[in-house]
Amino acid sequence: MSGRDEWILIDFWSSMFGSRVRIALAEKGIVYERREEDFPKKSQLLLEMNPTYGKIPVLIHNGNPICESLNIVQYIDEVCCFAPFLLPCDPYERAQARFWAHFIDHKLHSASIKTMAYETMEELKAAEKEMVEHLKLLQDELGEKAYFGGEEVGYLDVILGGFCTWFTIYQDMGSFSILDEFPKLKAWTRRCMERQTFSASLPDPDQLRELVHRIRRRNGIE
Amino acid sequence: MSGRDEWILIDFWSSMFGSRVRIALAEKGIVYERREEDFPKKSQLLLEMNPTYGKIPVLIHNGNPICESLNIVQYIDEVCCFAPFLLPCDPYERAQARFWAHFIDHKLHSASIKTMAYETMEELKAAEKEMVEHLKLLQDELGEKAYFGGEEVGYLDVILGGFCTWFTIYQDMGSFSILDEFPKLKAWTRRCMERQTFSASLPDPDQLRELVHRIRRRNGIE
Repeated sequence: MSGRDEWILIDFWSSMFGSRVRIALAEKGIVYERREEDFPKKSQLLLEMNPTYGKIPVLIHNGNPICESLNIVQYIDEVCCFAPFLLPCDPYERAQARFWAHFIDHKLHSASIKTMAYETMEELKAAEKEMVEHLKLLQDELGEKAYFGGEEVGYLDVILGGFCTWFTIYQDMGSFSILDEFPKLKAWTRRCMERQTFSASLPDPDQLRELVHRIRRRNGIE
Repeated sequence: MSGRDEWILIDFWSSMFGSRVRIALAEKGIVYERREEDFPKKSQLLLEMNPTYGKIPVLIHNGNPICESLNIVQYIDEVCCFAPFLLPCDPYERAQARFWAHFIDHKLHSASIKTMAYETMEELKAAEKEMVEHLKLLQDELGEKAYFGGEEVGYLDVILGGFCTWFTIYQDMGSFSILDEFPKLKAWTRRCMERQTFSASLPDPDQLRELVHRIRRRNGIE
């Protein structure tokens, strides 16, 4: 990597997947150009750079596209071989970090969608129950550490970090208080949000709330 | 890693996810103990080692469990720092290998399930169409190379390798000839199956065929 590297991020402001790439780039101090999509329309650049899925985020590094946010964050860490290092040094800890990152995308994310797309109170309650079970596992994984990465921000902090402002939205939509039920995760969220690299990379909660209500109205469930 | 390392693989004979871990261990020349599950019952060991999902494969290295096959193969490559290296050296090529591994698990695998679980000919045709589209992309990724890894077997060969004998089953279940439609993938499959590390790690096609018919009969679709 040289000082003349070109970084372009194809992104959409509300995306937790886009947010984690922004956080990773900010933690590494990389200056990049952001290309905002205008969904539901997709730009020619997005379709060319991610023909398989046509999804954001796509990071284009010196003309080479990298897709899928878990993969992109790992790529950033590998290609930018300087501190802060996101993935742990130890192969076993690295495997654990990847395992929980996968859990966040497959379990937490799908439960979180349900807490917003519910039609009945029963559906909402079931989604909240699922969400609580997943967050409990994540809080156990955090344990007494300041960050998932230990004393410093690591891969898993960046991956879950994309959800920080979304947590307040899930809470607003339902009757349960995510952050109060999980004091250690609450403290972790506050700690992350105090970092400029996180707070400047995350969407505004009011705009997010408005977006969620607009989608619910469009889908005829509000 | 020392000569006294203990490796245990919790496995199930027919699983393509288990097969790829067996292939990776064989490629690295690692001697391990295999613990076969007796599904649908789950062993106490499996539930203890993978409490989050309760799924095979789980690799236990010196008492530490690693779950999720893509993650396990990457772990094996990272902790066994000797040839053959599975992940490419170049970070961009590594990101590409991980991207296609994810594609295999999310797209190819779900289409392949449909080619076996169909109830009507329309469903079978749709599943085959999907499968053909995915295989086309994978064949394009292979290009003129001997292996996805180039001249030597790499990460993606191990990941897709778990499907080698399954390809013949998908073909038996439907009307299309996967391997004839994709001559480069066909040659790749033959090349892989000539390696003892692959052929000894993969299930027997006759037993697989019998299993698929038994499941279809149990589900009342045959």
